[in-house]
Amino acid sequence: MSEQRTEISTLGEFGLIDHLTKNIEHQNASTIVGVGDDAAVIDHFGKQTVITTDLLIEGVHFDLMYTPLKHLGYKSIIANLSDVYAMNAIPTQVTLSLAISNRFSVEALEEFYEGVYAACDAYGVDLVGGDTTSSQKGFVISVTALGEVAPDKYVKRSTAKVNDLVCVSGYLGGAYLGLILLEREKKIFLETKGAQPDLENRDYIVGRLLKPEARKDVIEFFEKENITPTSMMDISDGLSSEILHICKQSGTGAVIYEDKIPVHPDAKDFAYKLELDPTACALSGGEDYELLFTISQADYDKIKEVEGISVIGYIAEQTEGATIITRGGNKYNITAQGWNSFEK
Amino acid sequence: MSEQRTEISTLGEFGLIDHLTKNIEHQNASTIVGVGDDAAVIDHFGKQTVITTDLLIEGVHFDLMYTPLKHLGYKSIIANLSDVYAMNAIPTQVTLSLAISNRFSVEALEEFYEGVYAACDAYGVDLVGGDTTSSQKGFVISVTALGEVAPDKYVKRSTAKVNDLVCVSGYLGGAYLGLILLEREKKIFLETKGAQPDLENRDYIVGRLLKPEARKDVIEFFEKENITPTSMMDISDGLSSEILHICKQSGTGAVIYEDKIPVHPDAKDFAYKLELDPTACALSGGEDYELLFTISQADYDKIKEVEGISVIGYIAEQTEGATIITRGGNKYNITAQGWNSFEK
Repeated sequence: MSEQRTEISTLGEFGLIDHLTKNIEHQNASTIVGVGDDAAVIDHFGKQTVITTDLLIEGVHFDLMYTPLKHLGYKSIIANLSDVYAMNAIPTQVTLSLAISNRFSVEALEEFYEGVYAACDAYGVDLVGGDTTSSQKGFVISVTALGEVAPDKYVKRSTAKVNDLVCVSGYLGGAYLGLILLEREKKIFLETKGAQPDLENRDYIVGRLLKPEARKDVIEFFEKENITPTSMMDISDGLSSEILHICKQSGTGAVIYEDKIPVHPDAKDFAYKLELDPTACALSGGEDYELLFTISQADYDKIKEVEGISVIGYIAEQTEGATIITRGGNKYNITAQGWNSFEK
Repeated sequence: MSEQRTEISTLGEFGLIDHLTKNIEHQNASTIVGVGDDAAVIDHFGKQTVITTDLLIEGVHFDLMYTPLKHLGYKSIIANLSDVYAMNAIPTQVTLSLAISNRFSVEALEEFYEGVYAACDAYGVDLVGGDTTSSQKGFVISVTALGEVAPDKYVKRSTAKVNDLVCVSGYLGGAYLGLILLEREKKIFLETKGAQPDLENRDYIVGRLLKPEARKDVIEFFEKENITPTSMMDISDGLSSEILHICKQSGTGAVIYEDKIPVHPDAKDFAYKLELDPTACALSGGEDYELLFTISQADYDKIKEVEGISVIGYIAEQTEGATIITRGGNKYNITAQGWNSFEK
């Protein structure tokens, strides 16, 4: 947090928006009118538009005790871009609305926006509008993202077919283990005045939680290799929950192999230290922002040697349900943690 | 509120969304994929897309003591559609995100959604997505609306020209007077156990606050009469604030005549009863959701006899500032109530 503190009231609502958005430069030719009017205007050139929205609440989705505001701004954008990529689309614009209490200074909001702009820059999207208002308590963030996709090239969750291969990008469970670590260090800090957090050698899992990326590269790879996944979604609530979404919406079952689920060595290391099962972390832990997708077997050769893409199972008949085959060869039904799994 | 109470936890997050959105029927051919995936998909047919977003916080923007949930749902949508119309565009899709504490039951949320669907039906828009999450305290509503406009037919705030006529639709100040009335009755109710609110003959102002409409008809009138306003915005923060926006963004001044500002007789009646100046209510009171627009003098004949459109002044040089000429012939600078005027 910077040392200077400017009260938000010195700028007023409109002054604040002007102040925080004055340096916006549009990166997309489709952005015709941006921040500063009743609405933004976007052109489409015969493409289809994808829209997604997310609401983040302090104390539910993030804890400002261990989340730097710049990272929070970055992640708020990433979470929505990830949903756009999960439709096989390219994000183009975002809107951002904030509700803030007067415990925040202008400098604190500038840090938050620094992260927002960093994400917009990194992914080539334009911030085109929003709303800033006061809250009675806590920080509320609402992001809506728009994206473009060539007509009928979008990929839904509901179109997986029996015998398709189930794939994931990257590694799973890391963000959840980062959350456990930071919650533990927070507890120690609160109980032992002045204790410094012990995050040594935990950069990977902390980074997965605090500075996630969206898998733009995977969508670009699909384009380049002429692959259209048969279904896709992003992994924000944990692998098991997302597999069940695909199965329910596609009217199928699935078989997943435990030994194929990719967990990063640094994440495994911390899980073992806590005597947690890394597979359980991958299945139930959220916020990895990787992609879960299915492809037809005909595309297997195109992905089998690609680093960062793992085939973890296949789509089965609905009557078979969604099951996982463990390393020991046992078969279990996959169950989802539903509502607020982290709070139980 | 209905008598049955179903805990939200019995449905779970995804069950809740399914339950609340299961009867959606799309009204726009451009809506290709709606609720239930990572993002919605929208087609554009060579039009331009308008996007706007709004965040409503319990205790800041609404008080559930006197706001029925159905009305709140309706108004949440209207507030955003009004911004789309204010761009001279036709709204087509909305997304809705909610954060709710467990004091709300499923039945309470159903009432809220009833209002949302009623607004969507009345204005021909499709609910295409959203997010439902828990809040630690209070009810948070985030709506994003998309609309379509023929290429380059959108109308901005920044394009008013000197000598253009300044016009408003409908009546102003009514919603603000409704708010004063309901706040007064709430106070009496809280201080005098069992006191019943006295809202007799106040249907008009209460309705203006609790069940506003967006001025779709005015945009349709422009289309029919081939009028393109030179600038436009909706009146959500009070006439004075909006006039100053137009002047600032257009680099102009304005002259407004007090005796031309339209205030409904029922609103005037209540203002006089409270010894309030109706003009002050129109200038500072928010949430009327009327349109403020400017037209070139050449279009004057097309609107001069139209019921529900008032010419209230003209655009002046920037050096003249934004001024109001009172009934008594005095001239004052227009000043805006800025940040959260109602809370002062």
